Amino acid sequence: MVETNGKKIFDTVGADAVFTTCEYLKRYITGFLTEGGFVLTDKDGTTLYTDARYTEAAEKLLKGTEVRVREMDRFSNTPAELLKKYKTVGIAFEETFYPEYKKLSDMGLTLVDSSPAFRRCMAIKNEWELKNIARACDIAEEGFLKLLPEIKEGMTESEVAALLEYNMRTLGAYSTSFDTIVAFGAHAAVPHHVTGDTKLRFGDEILIDFGCKVDGYCSDITRTFLFGDDGKHADFKKAYAAVLAAHELVKENLKAGMTGGDGDAIARNYLESKGYGKYFTHSLGHGIGLNIHEFPFVRKGGQDVLENGMVFSDEPGVYLAGEYGIRIEDTITLKGGSVVSFMHKTDRNLVIL
Amino acid sequence: MVETNGKKIFDTVGADAVFTTCEYLKRYITGFLTEGGFVLTDKDGTTLYTDARYTEAAEKLLKGTEVRVREMDRFSNTPAELLKKYKTVGIAFEETFYPEYKKLSDMGLTLVDSSPAFRRCMAIKNEWELKNIARACDIAEEGFLKLLPEIKEGMTESEVAALLEYNMRTLGAYSTSFDTIVAFGAHAAVPHHVTGDTKLRFGDEILIDFGCKVDGYCSDITRTFLFGDDGKHADFKKAYAAVLAAHELVKENLKAGMTGGDGDAIARNYLESKGYGKYFTHSLGHGIGLNIHEFPFVRKGGQDVLENGMVFSDEPGVYLAGEYGIRIEDTITLKGGSVVSFMHKTDRNLVIL
Repeated sequence: MVETNGKKIFDTVGADAVFTTCEYLKRYITGFLTEGGFVLTDKDGTTLYTDARYTEAAEKLLKGTEVRVREMDRFSNTPAELLKKYKTVGIAFEETFYPEYKKLSDMGLTLVDSSPAFRRCMAIKNEWELKNIARACDIAEEGFLKLLPEIKEGMTESEVAALLEYNMRTLGAYSTSFDTIVAFGAHAAVPHHVTGDTKLRFGDEILIDFGCKVDGYCSDITRTFLFGDDGKHADFKKAYAAVLAAHELVKENLKAGMTGGDGDAIARNYLESKGYGKYFTHSLGHGIGLNIHEFPFVRKGGQDVLENGMVFSDEPGVYLAGEYGIRIEDTITLKGGSVVSFMHKTDRNLVIL
Repeated sequence: MVETNGKKIFDTVGADAVFTTCEYLKRYITGFLTEGGFVLTDKDGTTLYTDARYTEAAEKLLKGTEVRVREMDRFSNTPAELLKKYKTVGIAFEETFYPEYKKLSDMGLTLVDSSPAFRRCMAIKNEWELKNIARACDIAEEGFLKLLPEIKEGMTESEVAALLEYNMRTLGAYSTSFDTIVAFGAHAAVPHHVTGDTKLRFGDEILIDFGCKVDGYCSDITRTFLFGDDGKHADFKKAYAAVLAAHELVKENLKAGMTGGDGDAIARNYLESKGYGKYFTHSLGHGIGLNIHEFPFVRKGGQDVLENGMVFSDEPGVYLAGEYGIRIEDTITLKGGSVVSFMHKTDRNLVIL
């Protein structure tokens, strides 16, 4: 059953009520996706105010949870009417557009910023969230394994992306968690390459960065491999071994209580020792949940403390412009102080098709 | 070549400068998609401030346009540094989160709301935008035509959605324009049905609401049809004929200069005359562009005036809970005062597979 997060947020914010119209924050609190409407939590529990499109499904899903479902109307169930009994109301400043802020402020409410509370609470996943992320990771890996024998010479990057997305969809994903990146050859040296019409040739390297969503929760994975070996990949293979070693070192040595900066340094120091430091041009990782990029950030000098129950990526990379790019990425979590990866079906060793 | 919209927005807003960090507004002005950074327009033209990930591609795309590309830095190219020479600065209040508003306001700038200007300018598409929308509509129709013979008994709604999305992707779409809705049988009576694991049976009706994106611009189309005829569809067929007639009446009689309310009434009055008024539970249509739902809104009592160059949906529907649902939707535009549909490949008459 869905685990809701209303009480957790309410207790963390510490205002008389917590109010939000933001889609992903509403979903975080209730576990249920709605367009429009709002969610209101106070000491008596959480209420999802929505419209006739959603009430039946919401009531079914949320039966037995702390969340009540009410239909909005133009009279009693408006934010103006419902909020006037509170003195302090928590709203997420970082997700509140100025006109909404002004409206609430003009009502005479004392507004408290709930953004830090959401950021902290959302970072530590509950069992239901972890289960969804695990399933999204399973589907991504299974879709990738199904893809490998389907890759043929002459296919475009877009065709490979289309096949992979089709595989994940038929395996049970609701959507991708971001635009799939498929990069052939030197395109892989561009970390955010836009998947295009380039055709696959024998000997090309292939980098695929992808993921999908299950009940809103994302997976994120990158694999780099070779489409045949034309004998010209000596430098690539050396760099691959270094990136893989950095990736695995993080899994071994990153522990709960370290900062994001400490985590990043495990990979960065190793790659620097191998002469690849300046080619590792991005951060080691980012938090993953309802959003593909969220708190905590595992980056150089980062002060976010990594804790049990957090989910983030371990994705060192090395990019040599015009030559090759390598990134090896798992979605991982911290459990009992140590790293546990959600990925356990696909190979991280270099695959040559 | 990309047609940019910096001058159009600048002239409409009427402030010393127009500033935005919003992804789709930046894309609207420059035609180019960037994560992070900002766009600044003044009397001397438009500048896209971005980072090293995007500069090369942006310069290539925007060569010969009004848009200059600059890399951000921490010193001269910051919003604080660049904006201090202006008195009045236009920002889109409706797309500006409170902390950003406060920062700009605290700088002592006079902030002018550019949201109405963006809404109006974005509603009237230029030739490049119309071309992208036409292509997105073509791909959606071609993907659908390829799908029809692929539909087999026992397939799930999700599998049908996966196939359709795969078809659009391989035909050149970059992504879907929204989550594809595939509804079998009585599921079609729920206008926003969530595509699921229900299996297709002989005699089921199928409703598919879908679209894709080309250079960021969306298509939106719905087709309702039968998977074989089990002889139990007399009521459905009668309602289908009424919805189709309402859809076509809009195309014939909606003219530039009418309001959204006038347009909606063409379909609504007809459906009421046939006894289906109370089953047409949503609006006739919505504007379509970089966003799948945008200005203008073609709804009951709506006062938005429909003009040449606007793009919106014509989507009357009839929904009988537990029985059937019908929606027939084209993406259309106004040209020379009259409606021109972007859809010309798929049948609007009832298809029985």
